[in-house]
Amino acid sequence: MTKRKSYRLGDIAGKFGGELIGDPAIRISQVATLESACASDIVFISQPRYLAQLEGSKAGAVILGAAARDATGMARIICANPYAYFAKVSALLNPAAPFAAGVHKSAVVDKTARVEKTASIGAGAVIGKRVRIGKRAQIGAGCFVGDGSAIGDSTELHANVSVYHACSIGARCIVHAGAVIGADGFGIAREDGVWKKIPQIGSVVIGDDVEIGANTTIDRGTLGDTVIEEGVKLDNQIQIAHNVKIGAHTAIAACVGIAGSATIGRNCALGGAAMIYGHITIADNVSVSAGTLVMKSLDQPGTYTGVYPFSTHQRWLKNAAQLRQLDELAHRVRELERQLGKDKRTKP
Amino acid sequence: MTKRKSYRLGDIAGKFGGELIGDPAIRISQVATLESACASDIVFISQPRYLAQLEGSKAGAVILGAAARDATGMARIICANPYAYFAKVSALLNPAAPFAAGVHKSAVVDKTARVEKTASIGAGAVIGKRVRIGKRAQIGAGCFVGDGSAIGDSTELHANVSVYHACSIGARCIVHAGAVIGADGFGIAREDGVWKKIPQIGSVVIGDDVEIGANTTIDRGTLGDTVIEEGVKLDNQIQIAHNVKIGAHTAIAACVGIAGSATIGRNCALGGAAMIYGHITIADNVSVSAGTLVMKSLDQPGTYTGVYPFSTHQRWLKNAAQLRQLDELAHRVRELERQLGKDKRTKP
Amino acid sequence: MTKRKSYRLGDIAGKFGGELIGDPAIRISQVATLESACASDIVFISQPRYLAQLEGSKAGAVILGAAARDATGMARIICANPYAYFAKVSALLNPAAPFAAGVHKSAVVDKTARVEKTASIGAGAVIGKRVRIGKRAQIGAGCFVGDGSAIGDSTELHANVSVYHACSIGARCIVHAGAVIGADGFGIAREDGVWKKIPQIGSVVIGDDVEIGANTTIDRGTLGDTVIEEGVKLDNQIQIAHNVKIGAHTAIAACVGIAGSATIGRNCALGGAAMIYGHITIADNVSVSAGTLVMKSLDQPGTYTGVYPFSTHQRWLKNAAQLRQLDELAHRVRELERQLGKDKRTKP
Repeated sequence: MTKRKSYRLGDIAGKFGGELIGDPAIRISQVATLESACASDIVFISQPRYLAQLEGSKAGAVILGAAARDATGMARIICANPYAYFAKVSALLNPAAPFAAGVHKSAVVDKTARVEKTASIGAGAVIGKRVRIGKRAQIGAGCFVGDGSAIGDSTELHANVSVYHACSIGARCIVHAGAVIGADGFGIAREDGVWKKIPQIGSVVIGDDVEIGANTTIDRGTLGDTVIEEGVKLDNQIQIAHNVKIGAHTAIAACVGIAGSATIGRNCALGGAAMIYGHITIADNVSVSAGTLVMKSLDQPGTYTGVYPFSTHQRWLKNAAQLRQLDELAHRVRELERQLGKDKRTKP
Repeated sequence: MTKRKSYRLGDIAGKFGGELIGDPAIRISQVATLESACASDIVFISQPRYLAQLEGSKAGAVILGAAARDATGMARIICANPYAYFAKVSALLNPAAPFAAGVHKSAVVDKTARVEKTASIGAGAVIGKRVRIGKRAQIGAGCFVGDGSAIGDSTELHANVSVYHACSIGARCIVHAGAVIGADGFGIAREDGVWKKIPQIGSVVIGDDVEIGANTTIDRGTLGDTVIEEGVKLDNQIQIAHNVKIGAHTAIAACVGIAGSATIGRNCALGGAAMIYGHITIADNVSVSAGTLVMKSLDQPGTYTGVYPFSTHQRWLKNAAQLRQLDELAHRVRELERQLGKDKRTKP
Repeated sequence: MTKRKSYRLGDIAGKFGGELIGDPAIRISQVATLESACASDIVFISQPRYLAQLEGSKAGAVILGAAARDATGMARIICANPYAYFAKVSALLNPAAPFAAGVHKSAVVDKTARVEKTASIGAGAVIGKRVRIGKRAQIGAGCFVGDGSAIGDSTELHANVSVYHACSIGARCIVHAGAVIGADGFGIAREDGVWKKIPQIGSVVIGDDVEIGANTTIDRGTLGDTVIEEGVKLDNQIQIAHNVKIGAHTAIAACVGIAGSATIGRNCALGGAAMIYGHITIADNVSVSAGTLVMKSLDQPGTYTGVYPFSTHQRWLKNAAQLRQLDELAHRVRELERQLGKDKRTKP
């Protein structure tokens, strides 16, 4: 809408480092893909296989790794981590939209809540008793923040987020629309054929710099708290059950479910739709592949996978039929080995 | 509440075609199941195995395929596609509820938004700057439509839908409650043990006649747009990541996840809880079975499946134990073949 | 915030039964974990392996099963079901927060709705025509209840719940934030390459004492109703499609999907992310393990499982490669058996 601010390529390299090769006076105003870029755009390549596409690109400059230093004559910045460099350049070129501080006249803020003057409370938002809203925090339209909860400085809740009572969200967090924080955990005890509810009297504690995706749910603890440490990144539609702990700087892709009282380490990566059993512990630096169900604790870093390899339906029918009797097949192989005198083990 | 309008069977056949066998004066006022139908109801049968149940039904008429033309003496309409015919009859008998145009007094509409006079803005809805709301569009209670977004003619957003800024939704779309359109994609780059956010500066573009289920999420693009073409039908709790493209008239069942930059063809069908990897391409007319994780591109039409066949837990324990050492089992079979002189290949 | 009420241990045993061993005058004001408990807390142990941790606990009393009667000198209550006993004690010590009856001035309640005087309608809630809200019901901030729906006595809808028109929710239910009840089922019929919508004219009927988790979705029926019987407990992010029936006192963990017209029995337990095909019937007392996809009806009680056993990624690569040709492997074993004269069956 308004004219976009531009930066000299030399100023970008001056700000974020790296080796600039080419004209420092080139003006850059936006990031782009290789295909869509124009002369005022900067692009990046982090994987060598995309280098060939650079030739046809109209970009004004490119961010490259050291190995690709001489792969083009285009103006370029050479750095150790082109993707992270690109992230910083994009953040520079696309600063957060300014917002007007203040409480919208249609918002409902309890008189005991403490809202910093620089915060923004959107239309129709409802803020409960004794809630604290930090400096420059933004509470989106239609959000609900329950009694006694705290939202940290510069944290943004997008539209229609629900935060139950007594929850704590750190500074510089982003919570996307429809997320629910602090709902009751699934605590029920069976007696006489009926389920009795276990009151969920713990809370949710979320550290600084956490991002929470749209429609993700994080339940409050049963007795202690559910804890999300600083720098954790959660994609959309993730379910985090009561009393889960997620270590700092772990990234979790969409549709993951983590059952009650599981502990996930620091710097882990969980692929989309991975499922983690309750009451297990996953070490730091573990990667779980998409679609994998982890049923027991993992005490070693590494990548773990458990996915049925897909095929055409016809082929699946045949293989799945055999899988249903795999134990029998293994016994038949054992029997063949016995006949051929190869089985050194005692028979079962 | 009000008296239901009825139609003569002859008028229905006149309107939608097909061969009418029986009294055209029979009055039909509703569709029903075989079991619940009464004399003013019309039912349908698309699968021969249900024909036997027709005998006990009190329905006034039935919609049948050509093969079942003489299977009953009941008044009937014979057509090529009984299910689609039923859809049209049901739509005739159950027209959309009328609604009052206008902006509810509790809604908050920015003065720069352009809302057509025939549109309806529900209680507590929040409409941002420069938003365009089309003719006869309905924005439900508690919806949020961010700055610069556009909602097409005759499109309905049910309650508590969140649409971020700069998104575009076509005409005659239906978006169910709790859906979130245009949240940031999961774009993060790792540096020095910390995740840096990649600004998500693309948008979401949704074609005409798209239906989006409850609590489904569609993320905005990182650089370009996330695109849902016309006629796509999305069930509940689907996650569509940034820069995904979904071809026209594809239908996707509930709980599916599609990772970033995947391209899905036209006329595809994805079964419930199917998961699609990022950066892959799926051809037109592909069917993916429920629960299947697709890890690589599919360039041929057909049905693809990858699901662990369930069994009793006891049987699963045995088969799964063997699956954990399947590679070893295969080598043992190879060794047996070698001993029997059948292995023509060189040893590994 | 306010001083917590305490109970004499003797009064607790008097109220809920069990054998009290120790000083009945001990005052208990809260439940706690073994690690965090102080002298005014009561803890419980339902599994013998945790008994060792009791020694270090500072709890004032413990709830134990009969087998652990003499495992400690701590004041204790001995009962048949420690977990259920704990649930009742916790409910006693943590009564529901009191709430102010009445309609918040920012709520929008249609003049034809019937709201009991003891009910509470939260800020920004929207209540449609002819809606009935029962005694002591609580409708949270930002909720939407569509025309003609009914909310039973003492039922609580947390923030931002959407209930479509003509749905019925029983008494003493709890519906967590972001849940959507009564959205259209995924009913579409294909004709001429285009999907036609089937009007969803059924409804949703939910019995008494049902709990529904955050962002869970329950679709309305196509012709008849979707039915959730009394005492059913649903965790977060569950998808229940049109015309599903769930029998009384069944418990369903998070992220489960149940496809259209499936019938689930009474007293079933579905583990997290289990998926149930449409149009199948599951008997009473069936347990489905987490992550299992059930493709056909189950007419016997028992536990059913179908999960790919995870491993390190390297090991998975090898086993999955063999699984892709399992049918061939089985044929090779058959051939070996034939050569060794063991195959009594005729060749395929």
